[in-house]
Amino acid sequence: MRTALVIGTGLIGTSIALALTSRGVRVHLEDHDPEQARTASALGAGSVEPPAGPMELAVVAVPPAHIAPTLAAARSRGAAGAYLDVGSVKGRPRRELADLGFAFDRYLGSHPMSGRERSGPLAATADLFEGRPWVLTPTPETDTEVLNLALELVALCRAVPVVMDADAHDRAVALVSHTPQLLSSLVAARLESAEESAVRLCGQGIRDVTRIAASDPRMWIDILSANPGPVADVLTDLAADLDETVRALRSLESADAEKRAAGADGVTALLRRGNAGQERVPGKHGAAPAVYETVAVLITDRPGELARIFADAGVAGVNIEDVRIEHATGQQAGLVQLMVDPNAAPVLSAALRERGWSIRQ
Amino acid sequence: MRTALVIGTGLIGTSIALALTSRGVRVHLEDHDPEQARTASALGAGSVEPPAGPMELAVVAVPPAHIAPTLAAARSRGAAGAYLDVGSVKGRPRRELADLGFAFDRYLGSHPMSGRERSGPLAATADLFEGRPWVLTPTPETDTEVLNLALELVALCRAVPVVMDADAHDRAVALVSHTPQLLSSLVAARLESAEESAVRLCGQGIRDVTRIAASDPRMWIDILSANPGPVADVLTDLAADLDETVRALRSLESADAEKRAAGADGVTALLRRGNAGQERVPGKHGAAPAVYETVAVLITDRPGELARIFADAGVAGVNIEDVRIEHATGQQAGLVQLMVDPNAAPVLSAALRERGWSIRQ
Repeated sequence: MRTALVIGTGLIGTSIALALTSRGVRVHLEDHDPEQARTASALGAGSVEPPAGPMELAVVAVPPAHIAPTLAAARSRGAAGAYLDVGSVKGRPRRELADLGFAFDRYLGSHPMSGRERSGPLAATADLFEGRPWVLTPTPETDTEVLNLALELVALCRAVPVVMDADAHDRAVALVSHTPQLLSSLVAARLESAEESAVRLCGQGIRDVTRIAASDPRMWIDILSANPGPVADVLTDLAADLDETVRALRSLESADAEKRAAGADGVTALLRRGNAGQERVPGKHGAAPAVYETVAVLITDRPGELARIFADAGVAGVNIEDVRIEHATGQQAGLVQLMVDPNAAPVLSAALRERGWSIRQ
Repeated sequence: MRTALVIGTGLIGTSIALALTSRGVRVHLEDHDPEQARTASALGAGSVEPPAGPMELAVVAVPPAHIAPTLAAARSRGAAGAYLDVGSVKGRPRRELADLGFAFDRYLGSHPMSGRERSGPLAATADLFEGRPWVLTPTPETDTEVLNLALELVALCRAVPVVMDADAHDRAVALVSHTPQLLSSLVAARLESAEESAVRLCGQGIRDVTRIAASDPRMWIDILSANPGPVADVLTDLAADLDETVRALRSLESADAEKRAAGADGVTALLRRGNAGQERVPGKHGAAPAVYETVAVLITDRPGELARIFADAGVAGVNIEDVRIEHATGQQAGLVQLMVDPNAAPVLSAALRERGWSIRQ
C-alpha cells in the first residue's frame, strides 16, 4: 500500500494515519471539521490537501451513525479503489449501505479492538493497535484484493486480524464490551445517593467493578445506539438471572429450612457459574488465561521503594508480569502485589527477603 | 489490654491474634478444629493451652451463622470480661443473640473491612488490618469500658475505627460489597457458554468488572445467607434500572425517531448516573477520590525494564501512586501506566523521555 485516504480524524482515524505515515504510506486526511484534520496533520498524520487522484484505500473512521452515508459519498466521487470502515458495530451500517444500494465488492467492514479513555486526534498514537485484535467482516461479495489490502493495513498497524461475521461481531461486543459497560454503570448508579458512611466502606472489589462507569456517555450512546438489539438481548438474559438471584435471596430470609436450603443452592449456582465464566476471560497476553502467582511485598510510600523492589527482582532475573499497588486507607504504607510466573515466585520471594523486604505469605 | 481469647483461627482470627501477640498481648486460641488452632499457634499467634482464668477480651471470629451460639457459649462459661465478634454482617447475629437472652452490656459487634482471596490461618498476617476501616456497632446497652477495649483492639491492629448502627452497616456492605460481588458473577456467568470467538475479544473493561467473580462461592454463600434482605433490596432497585435500560435499548431499535430519542435519553441518563456514582468511590488512600495523572510508557517484556523505569522515576524524585501493566494481545511489548500526582506528571514524563523511554501522550 502506497496511498490512503483517512476520513474522520478522531482518535482511531488519526492513530491509523500516524501508523501508516510512519511506515511510508502517503496519507491524505479529511474531516467534517477541517480544524480537527489540520490538528491531525500537524501531528504528522498526513496531508490535508485534497489528493490529485483516487487513493488505493479509503478508511472511514466516523461515528457508527455516519458510516453508511460517508462511505456512499466517498464511493460516488471515486475517492479510492477500496473502502474500509473501522466502526465499533458492523451489522447496522451494513444494512444501511444495502438500503443505499452500495455495492459490497470493494468494501470491508472492520473493527480494531483498541480504545482509550481520551478521544480526539491529540490522544492518537501510532502504536494504538499494536498486538490488539482487529476484526474483519468480509462477505462473499468482498473482492480478495480488498481483503488483502485490509490485512496489509492491519499488519502496518501491528494489530492481529480476526475474521468474523458482522452480526456475530455485534453479538460478541454486546457481550464482552457493551454489557460490562452498562452493568458497571448500573452498580455505580446505586452509589449516587448512598450515604457517605456507606461509601466510606468501598474496597477494591467495587472499585474494579465500577472503574469503566467513568466512561464518556456521549461516546457510549453512539455505540449503543448502533447496537441496541444484541445488547438488549444479553441484558434480558442477565435480568432473568438477576430476578432468580433476588428470589433465591428472599428464600434465604425464610423461616423454613427447606426454602433456605433452596435459596442457598440458587445463589451458590450463580457464584459457580460466575467462577466458570471468569476463568474464560483471557489474560493480558491474549487467548489463554494467564496463571500468575502473586508475591506481596510491604512498602512505605517513599519515592524509590518500588524502584528498589524492581531492581532487586531484576537482579534475581525474574520478570514481573503485572503489578498492583494496594495502599492502606488513610495511611502511607502499602502492599505491592507482584504477579510472576509460578516457577519464579519462590525465587523472587527468597531474593526479596534476602534484600530485607517484608514478604506477605 | 494484656490478655485475649481468640475463638476461631481462620484468616481473620489468626491475623488479629498475630497482631495482638506482636504488640505484647498474651493470646489464647480456640477453634472447633484443634488442628487449625495448632497451626495458628505454630505461626506465633498464641497458645492453644486453655487459659487459667477469664481473659480481658474474647474475640469471636467464626462464620456468621455460628456467631450467636459461640458468643452465648463463651459467655455462659465466663471466658472473658468482654466479648467482640468480627463477622461480616451485624444485624442477624444480634437478633439471634437477643433470642438467646444474651445480655448486650459486655458485647460489641464489629467488622474489620479486610480480606484476602485466600482463607485459613496460613493466609493470616499481623498487618491485615493496617489502615483499613473497622466498623464498630455499639448500642446504648454497651458498657463504655467494652467500647474502649474494642477501640484498643482496633488501634493494636492499626485499623481505623468507624462507628455505625448494625443495620446501617448491613445495608452499607450490601451496597458496596455484596451487590458488586453478585453483579460481577452475573456478568461473568454470561461468558460461561459464550463462543470462543467472542471471548477472544475481551478487553480490560470486562476483565476489571469480572475480577471478583473468581471469589470462593463457599465463603460468599456464608456472607450472603447472613444478609439476604438488604442485598435483595439493592438488587431489586438495580433490577428496576436494568429493566428500564432494556426498554430504552428496545426504543433505540424503533423506526420512530421520537421513540429512538427517548431511548437515547434513557440510556444517557443511566450512563450519567453511573459517572456520578463512580466519582464517589474513594481512592486507595481513603475518603477523598484520588485524582492521579497517568504517564504511559512503552516497554518490552524483558526482566529489568520495570526496574529501570522505577529507578529513573526515583531519580526524578517522583512517587508512583499506582501502576498498571497492559500487555498487548499475543505480543511481548506492553504499556506501563504510572499513576502520579498531577503536578509530578510533566516532571516524570520529561525525566523518562530524557532517559530514552517512549512516552505515550
